[in-house]
Amino acid sequence: MKIAQVSPLYESCPPRFYGGTERIVYYLTEELVRLGHEVTLFASGDSCTSAVLEAPCEQALRLGEARKDSLIYHLTMLHRVRRRAAEFDLIHFHLDYLHFPLFAECWDRTLTTLHGRLDLPDLPVIMREFPMMPLVSISAAQQTPLCWANWIGRILHGLPRDLHCLGSGDGGYLAFLGRIAPEKGPDRAIAIARAADVPLQIAAKVDPVDHDYFEHAIAPLLQDPLIEFIGEIDENEKGGFLGDAAALLFPIDWPEPFGLVLIEAMATGTPVIAFGCGSVPEIIEDGVTGFIVDDITAAAAAVPLARQLDRATIRRRFEERFTADRMARDYVTLYQRARLGGTPVVEPKQPTFAAAEGLAQAAE
Amino acid sequence: MKIAQVSPLYESCPPRFYGGTERIVYYLTEELVRLGHEVTLFASGDSCTSAVLEAPCEQALRLGEARKDSLIYHLTMLHRVRRRAAEFDLIHFHLDYLHFPLFAECWDRTLTTLHGRLDLPDLPVIMREFPMMPLVSISAAQQTPLCWANWIGRILHGLPRDLHCLGSGDGGYLAFLGRIAPEKGPDRAIAIARAADVPLQIAAKVDPVDHDYFEHAIAPLLQDPLIEFIGEIDENEKGGFLGDAAALLFPIDWPEPFGLVLIEAMATGTPVIAFGCGSVPEIIEDGVTGFIVDDITAAAAAVPLARQLDRATIRRRFEERFTADRMARDYVTLYQRARLGGTPVVEPKQPTFAAAEGLAQAAE
Repeated sequence: MKIAQVSPLYESCPPRFYGGTERIVYYLTEELVRLGHEVTLFASGDSCTSAVLEAPCEQALRLGEARKDSLIYHLTMLHRVRRRAAEFDLIHFHLDYLHFPLFAECWDRTLTTLHGRLDLPDLPVIMREFPMMPLVSISAAQQTPLCWANWIGRILHGLPRDLHCLGSGDGGYLAFLGRIAPEKGPDRAIAIARAADVPLQIAAKVDPVDHDYFEHAIAPLLQDPLIEFIGEIDENEKGGFLGDAAALLFPIDWPEPFGLVLIEAMATGTPVIAFGCGSVPEIIEDGVTGFIVDDITAAAAAVPLARQLDRATIRRRFEERFTADRMARDYVTLYQRARLGGTPVVEPKQPTFAAAEGLAQAAE
Repeated sequence: MKIAQVSPLYESCPPRFYGGTERIVYYLTEELVRLGHEVTLFASGDSCTSAVLEAPCEQALRLGEARKDSLIYHLTMLHRVRRRAAEFDLIHFHLDYLHFPLFAECWDRTLTTLHGRLDLPDLPVIMREFPMMPLVSISAAQQTPLCWANWIGRILHGLPRDLHCLGSGDGGYLAFLGRIAPEKGPDRAIAIARAADVPLQIAAKVDPVDHDYFEHAIAPLLQDPLIEFIGEIDENEKGGFLGDAAALLFPIDWPEPFGLVLIEAMATGTPVIAFGCGSVPEIIEDGVTGFIVDDITAAAAAVPLARQLDRATIRRRFEERFTADRMARDYVTLYQRARLGGTPVVEPKQPTFAAAEGLAQAAE
């Protein structure tokens, strides 16, 4: 197929720093090219891709000195996509809803993956206004606040099979990886480590908006010799950090739409101890790839149990369920369905577990 | 003609509070209806209009309790305008550039008035991307940073002839009206009043973003018995406040695109003492409707001179140059030209001074 991928421009594909959406667009694009599709990637000019790159700006908007007017560059990009729309069998948007008015008339050649949380008060307004736009979610939990919207599929994220390899878990520490923010529960992670009396390593960035929270709520807790704050780490360091950990703590306090770090840990064979919010029950198999808990006491009790889980099995479940290859094949199936007006396509003869998962929502 | 006016949704038309763009859209719409045109006004649902109102939201977005996602409502509005585009001879946008991608293909039935300052670093990007969109400025000075853009006209704002009436100027005070913000020069206004030894009344709002500036830079200056801070006043109070003043001070420190308060003062016969930034030299006739000065000393020296200007003449110049009727007729001329692909139309047989002004830019 001739496919356009339309990425946000805040980060490059892949991002030099934090940026889950652009990272998934990058993985998906690479896999689609590998599967033999002709892909054009609309993204910032500092992106790396095996596809043909179309860049409405030289550099990711969050980089550079001057603060960029992101709307201007996204509108410019949409205009260029629209002018070339006839060249593509399918245009896959990752921009929330900015493209809806411009592509409402050719909705049957579009697919929109919504990457963010959907419990925002004004979202129903735009979804009701554009009921024709075919939508894809990244978890069933994400869909809940807009369950009536035009979902034609649900596709869980995937990572390149060889991005990370099976780790030993011999570092003897619990890991917290991501952002220091109240909804991510770093305070809970510290409480779990102290209750379990196991060291915790926190590898996390602190956004300016969360600086006060870090100073007042987290920094005082770092006095405990059990707790080590190592700051932000880059992509190359993640595999070792996660693979050496006894378990990843994911004590979130918000409706996480997906949570990439969950499958990053699984890719290294590291079990996850997670609070059951948002997408967690769809990703973590309780007692197999980790434990889903309700409170800090249960989380601490799960720490020794997590150490007994079989790391090779966790890695195998990653390979079965969360590779970028599976994600890309699921999307191709949905692209074909979208081209048929959203009606169910013939199921592949030998559906993989993963493909069946991608299609689960479609039959409803 | 069948005309659509597309207003921002931040304030109603007219605004209940501050909001120059929505106020001009309101005046223009009323005059177009009065001139016999069929007008549809796309604006917030709490607008008052003689046109047919199409409202994508019940209430102006700046009102109400919850903070609204303005992009959602503006995209919704644009979608509705686009679906009905064929019904209109001309669609007049007041939204900056958000509509450019969606209306690029029917640019010849659109006109876009840019209401803001145009020296923002990313604006050239979007203007180069959409060179077909016909633009109207609100002053020649405003155009300067984008002088190469697709300007098909320049139309100075206007007010309803009877909005204000000739005042006596007998209050014996200088007036400052608008916002407390560094670029508006309230500190300079105070310095001018003190240098001239004439009382100053400051009728101005303080936006949250300017609260620190007010506290630290302005509040200490209010100790002087010459200076009276009376806070924000509403539309009904403006006529009396301006009409009783000996002169309006407009000591701005930024490229003001228009400055509605200048013509509000003129409508009451009150002269303006203004710094010569932005649109000021196009609006104030030095020695007739006020004085254009370079510094505080010159401004103070102009105070007694301003008192000698003939208030009836100032009012007459307002009636000749800055009525909403003149503004609406200028726009109708541009609507006709836009429909002809931006080529000059046959000039009216008896061009008014005002119409000629509106067309000045077009001949270039």
